[in-house]
Amino acid sequence: MDTFIFVLEIIGTVAFASSGAMIAIEKKMDIFGVNILGATTAVGGGMMRDIILGITPPTAFAKPVYVLFAILTSTLLFAITYTNPEILKSRAKNKYYDNVMMLCDTLGLGIFTVVGIQAAANVVTENNTFFFVFVGVLTGVGGGVLRDIMAGETPYILVREIYACASIAGGIVCVVCRDSMGEPAGVILGLIVTVVIRMLAAYFRWNLLRVR
Amino acid sequence: MDTFIFVLEIIGTVAFASSGAMIAIEKKMDIFGVNILGATTAVGGGMMRDIILGITPPTAFAKPVYVLFAILTSTLLFAITYTNPEILKSRAKNKYYDNVMMLCDTLGLGIFTVVGIQAAANVVTENNTFFFVFVGVLTGVGGGVLRDIMAGETPYILVREIYACASIAGGIVCVVCRDSMGEPAGVILGLIVTVVIRMLAAYFRWNLLRVR
Amino acid sequence: MDTFIFVLEIIGTVAFASSGAMIAIEKKMDIFGVNILGATTAVGGGMMRDIILGITPPTAFAKPVYVLFAILTSTLLFAITYTNPEILKSRAKNKYYDNVMMLCDTLGLGIFTVVGIQAAANVVTENNTFFFVFVGVLTGVGGGVLRDIMAGETPYILVREIYACASIAGGIVCVVCRDSMGEPAGVILGLIVTVVIRMLAAYFRWNLLRVR
Repeated sequence: MDTFIFVLEIIGTVAFASSGAMIAIEKKMDIFGVNILGATTAVGGGMMRDIILGITPPTAFAKPVYVLFAILTSTLLFAITYTNPEILKSRAKNKYYDNVMMLCDTLGLGIFTVVGIQAAANVVTENNTFFFVFVGVLTGVGGGVLRDIMAGETPYILVREIYACASIAGGIVCVVCRDSMGEPAGVILGLIVTVVIRMLAAYFRWNLLRVR
Repeated sequence: MDTFIFVLEIIGTVAFASSGAMIAIEKKMDIFGVNILGATTAVGGGMMRDIILGITPPTAFAKPVYVLFAILTSTLLFAITYTNPEILKSRAKNKYYDNVMMLCDTLGLGIFTVVGIQAAANVVTENNTFFFVFVGVLTGVGGGVLRDIMAGETPYILVREIYACASIAGGIVCVVCRDSMGEPAGVILGLIVTVVIRMLAAYFRWNLLRVR
Repeated sequence: MDTFIFVLEIIGTVAFASSGAMIAIEKKMDIFGVNILGATTAVGGGMMRDIILGITPPTAFAKPVYVLFAILTSTLLFAITYTNPEILKSRAKNKYYDNVMMLCDTLGLGIFTVVGIQAAANVVTENNTFFFVFVGVLTGVGGGVLRDIMAGETPYILVREIYACASIAGGIVCVVCRDSMGEPAGVILGLIVTVVIRMLAAYFRWNLLRVR
């Protein structure tokens, strides 16, 4: 189980680092800015989670592997776009690029939501669905909120289709299934539910109510 | 005393959730964004306080009641403005609306300032006026700062009339009166001082010095 | 050693408070906003560091001296610019002013990087270069990031020449030299390396790669 969670964490780290690094590249930041924003996005949610849970120093500080993967990802993406700047220039028409970015962000959201719940369950033993889901959602959305605030954008969580909603739904599924079907099933189902809801919302352009 | 503080906390939660939710509604966020910004404003200051005091997990995570009241408030306000969008359209001339918003923000500021001092006094027993006031001010202004940063606004605390000043004055009164007149008197007087100073400053448009 | 670190901390506090206060003054904030932004910049990095290290309440809350120096600095700068507003008006041509501001920010960055490493080494005894450097960089850049986000600017760390790079290089030098040459040598050399790299980068306008 620990290995499985670790693999998930690394995939989530790479996915979130990609989303942070690409936003920095689009904003014409230099290679250091790209790495900083990539790393902040990748480890930000987990750091918030650990501070909330009272785990000091946070895992991202104690184990270099997460920051290392975030930096490798960011630098690789920088190298690719530096040698092929046309990737960004044709972007307006490039639906493929936008879809990959959305997938990265969604994958990070889903993975960190369930990973956050696992971490919370390791610290707090009593069954408290609200607490587990809240920690999971914070872990899932935290990195993206830091990324957007530092990049000067309105946070995704406030404006994108069904963003927090997908994380909350996946978190509830994860907590319920962990109890009834075991940890692995809960983690996998929670992840799938988050990703599927977010992808469906983006594909069908589900719009939630807003005051006009 | 605990019941009294709890009632204050719920009033402050509703007041701050209202101020966060209305800013989200004005910015045309959807119903989820409105709830997220309302809840962040309502529990943000208390979360910062608990992290500073070493209370993990923070109260907002351990006890769902605060988030629940924030969500109820935000959803109710969304429903009202969704069915009566003219409330916002006539806003430019609507002094009444602006005054209610200011009152909500002021009430939250005052309540969380004194509630923060109570929480700090439960953790640190030695008498340290600076520490108590600092924690109170952070609790009072924290939610609003998060709200403004996430909404892309310059934080109130930096630009509004006498904002932090009111919280600091109320915090000092609270700490001094708690010692000399008992906890309830300190809490009530600190709250009144914060609210009155802020209201007077807004009403008379007190301007502090600024470099022109 | 403790006295030496304390003197460094006060110099760093004054330097960062100056950089925060001047940005607030340039943005036409009133005297309270100037003090709040000055104090946030000065103690923000140390607060993040203490929360990461599990030191609660953070030093800035427990010992008033840092906030006091930040407020004195901010108020003094406000008084100077209020009575001499022409300092800011001729700013466009005033290279001298920009250089002083850059020096303040650089000094704060260098000092808090090495001070952060000292604090981390007091808490975590095992030798972990990555951890020490990470905490040092966070302490060094944290106050400036809060300042820029609250002032509505893109954080320096993402866009300025070699900003985080200088802090990382100085941090590594500090950790390595502390082991081999003793604490004082590590602190002084780490500080010098950070400041010199940052100054050279600004003077020679070193540009890092960015995608065009």
